[in-house]
Order: sequence, then C-alpha cells, then structure tokens
Amino acid sequence: MRVLPLADVYRLLEPGPVTLLITADEGRANVMAMSWHMMLEFEPPGIACIVSANGHSFAALERTGECVIAVPPATMADRVVGIGNCSGRSVDKFDRFDLRRRKADLVAPPLLPECIANIECRVTDRKMIRAYNMFILEAVKAWHDPAKAGAATMHHRGWGEFAFDGEIVRIPSNMR
Amino acid sequence: MRVLPLADVYRLLEPGPVTLLITADEGRANVMAMSWHMMLEFEPPGIACIVSANGHSFAALERTGECVIAVPPATMADRVVGIGNCSGRSVDKFDRFDLRRRKADLVAPPLLPECIANIECRVTDRKMIRAYNMFILEAVKAWHDPAKAGAATMHHRGWGEFAFDGEIVRIPSNMR
Repeated sequence: MRVLPLADVYRLLEPGPVTLLITADEGRANVMAMSWHMMLEFEPPGIACIVSANGHSFAALERTGECVIAVPPATMADRVVGIGNCSGRSVDKFDRFDLRRRKADLVAPPLLPECIANIECRVTDRKMIRAYNMFILEAVKAWHDPAKAGAATMHHRGWGEFAFDGEIVRIPSNMR
Repeated sequence: MRVLPLADVYRLLEPGPVTLLITADEGRANVMAMSWHMMLEFEPPGIACIVSANGHSFAALERTGECVIAVPPATMADRVVGIGNCSGRSVDKFDRFDLRRRKADLVAPPLLPECIANIECRVTDRKMIRAYNMFILEAVKAWHDPAKAGAATMHHRGWGEFAFDGEIVRIPSNMR
C-alpha cells in the first residue's frame, strides 16, 4: 500500500461504495459494513457517517474517537456481507472472515490491506451523535493499493442487492 | 411515474448515485448535480446533504426549506455534467438542457419525470448549515418510473469520471 494524498480521499467516498469501518477498543479491533457516509469537505477531507447505536462499533468509535474506513473491492462482496451480518460483540470478525490487517500510522484501529484503500480518521465533532448517530470525521492519513486501482466497488441497494461498478465513463467537466 | 413507498427511499440513495437537487425560489426552479448525500434514517426517510454555499441552490433551499432529489439514469450523464457545470444564477437549466418537469405533490420544486425516481423533501434541521453547509431533510413523498426500474445510475469519482452501475449481484443477507 502507498500513501494517498488527502486531497484525493473524496474520490473514494463520493461514489458511494459500501465501506468497512474498523475500530479498536482496548486493543480489540472490530469491523462493520457501512454505506451511510458522505463527504463534507475536500481538504482536509471531512466525512460524515452514521453508525447504529445498537452495534458494537458505535461504543468503540464514541469512546476512542478513531477509526479506519476501508473501501473493499467487489471481489470481497461475500465477506463484506458476512461482516455486516454478525456482531463484534460475539464474534472476532478478523478470524471468522480471515481478514489480514496491518498497523495504521496515526490511529489505533488496523488497516485492511486487501482493500482498495484505507482512510485513517479521527472524530472531530460529536454534536450530532445523540440526534442522528452521526459522527463527523477528519481523514488524517490515507493509503491505496496501486495494484487495485480502478477495481470495481459495490453499492448496496438494500437486502443484499448490490450494483457492482461497470463501465467507467469520462465526460469533460470542470467539477472537482 | 408511480408513488414509491417511503420505506423504499433508502434503496435509491444508499448506493451513492449522482443525484439532481431541484429547488424553486419565488416561482423560479433550478437544478444542480449533487453527490454529497447520505441516508440518516429508514422511516420516515431522513437524508443529509451538502450544498455549496456558493451556489444558487443554497439560498433557495435555505429560504424555502423544500427540494426534490431526483436520481438520473446513466443515459442522462451528459446532461447531468452540463447541469453541474453552470449556475442557475445566469442560466435557465431547464431550457438549456431541455428538461421536462412535472408538478410535485407536496413541495413547490418540480419533479423530473425523465429520472428513475424523485423524492420530495422538506428541511427539518438547520443546525448544521452554518458549520458544514449540511441540510437535514425528510422525504415526504417519493415517485418512481417502473419503466426505468433497475436502470444504471452513475457514481462520480472526481473530475467527470463516472462509474456506471454494472453487474447486479444478490447475496443472501439479513441487512436491510
């Protein structure tokens, strides 16, 4: 994995892929599937995300203020669905889904080197947690795997139906 | 177009498509391209979105508290990019891009019947506008065109590069 300029983080999340959210609480890492996220700001990259208060990740994210957002390739779809269908409360998902991990640089939760990219994040605003389970994050370091550049991501349409990225189209645009 | 149950709205926005945001200010409608949005709640559907304070739509949305979010098919990609590359301040985008419109049921901005779906929304929380240009919306009525069900949507990767939906995959899941 190589460092990805922070200015390019939005190009990973703006397309709306299913992501994996990795947390670590008292040394124990966990991972959940997350599709409710959006960009807030280009640079430094601001990200908003919704994390269910019922899940094991919520308490870890609230307590530690740190996470990694990983973008899995569509080839990991079966594992991503499996990750979404069990709880870190009762399962070590890294074991169950045979997920490799690597130490992050600036936050405690690990990176997932099998993913297209990994974004190390810190919680910067907790005001919307109570009303919406919404965390405001800032990306502090990002990584990508050049060997997986352009790999198809997956987009959830509900109940396990996914659209995988198909044709890539370039249309002249002055929109960042 | 037919009415879409509000409980199904998340299935349109969770996959992260480029959307069109339609507003109307003092009877004059406008439309912008929007990719920074996310679901907040299933039912009633809560939606968060970021609207640039520099754009013409921001003032209309802030003033009127009403909008329509339309999901364009990938076949409209050229027009969607065109809509994103000019301002409603100087251009009537409905004229320039030959956009048909239809009266909405509960809000003033019009629907775009050429789109896959249209979601009538009201602003329900303005507390994050100042800090993040973030509007919290509630979907109050939704429409879809059954003839366009399953049509490919588009996902922006920056600077006019788009991933169109490709293969649709179903994986047994108990995640809504």
